[in-house]
Amino acid sequence: MDEPASELAREDCVACRPGSPKVAAEEAASLLADLPEWTVASVAGIDRLTCRFAFPNFAGALAFANRVGELADAADHHPEITIEWGAATVSWWTHSIGGLHRNDFIMAARTTQAGR
Amino acid sequence: MDEPASELAREDCVACRPGSPKVAAEEAASLLADLPEWTVASVAGIDRLTCRFAFPNFAGALAFANRVGELADAADHHPEITIEWGAATVSWWTHSIGGLHRNDFIMAARTTQAGR
Repeated sequence: MDEPASELAREDCVACRPGSPKVAAEEAASLLADLPEWTVASVAGIDRLTCRFAFPNFAGALAFANRVGELADAADHHPEITIEWGAATVSWWTHSIGGLHRNDFIMAARTTQAGR
Repeated sequence: MDEPASELAREDCVACRPGSPKVAAEEAASLLADLPEWTVASVAGIDRLTCRFAFPNFAGALAFANRVGELADAADHHPEITIEWGAATVSWWTHSIGGLHRNDFIMAARTTQAGR
């Protein structure tokens, strides 16, 4: 049986524009339960989903960033990725709505798969 | 004639360990004059050299990060790189001395060349 996060990863990202709804608090809590490695952090008042992935060196973190970049281009939805020696930190949020859309949780689930 | 930053980019990074000297303020000011795009920012009390490079999309920023990663692996000295849609921000500092070594200015000069 698939894990819930795998099902989430297979959902389509929908086109999102200003005025699209942010996820409600209850839905966000339910989605986060399927993404235990991810946390919601507020940066300059805008919620973002963040996860830090560990790697044995810089090249491993960079290779992961390239895999996430492919996912991002395919979905036309892009994260912020910070690469350092031994780690990459990925954050997803939706600029056009200033917060979290269901798309961000879908992309977080795909990112976790790419980090395995 | 070469620009001063090009000369800096050709210097070798030397092995650096705890106790190696940080650049003195006067030397830092002189090196920064050759790197006009870079600023010194203090994060958690540790000075770092930082520069934001603009690109037309996410893939351009990621391709640049890969070029910087090659430079970093070749010198065995690694930066922090934050990639977002349209930009990559690179920061150099030396963990082992908790601040800026001449190596960081050398790597900043090479990074600027990779961003052109």
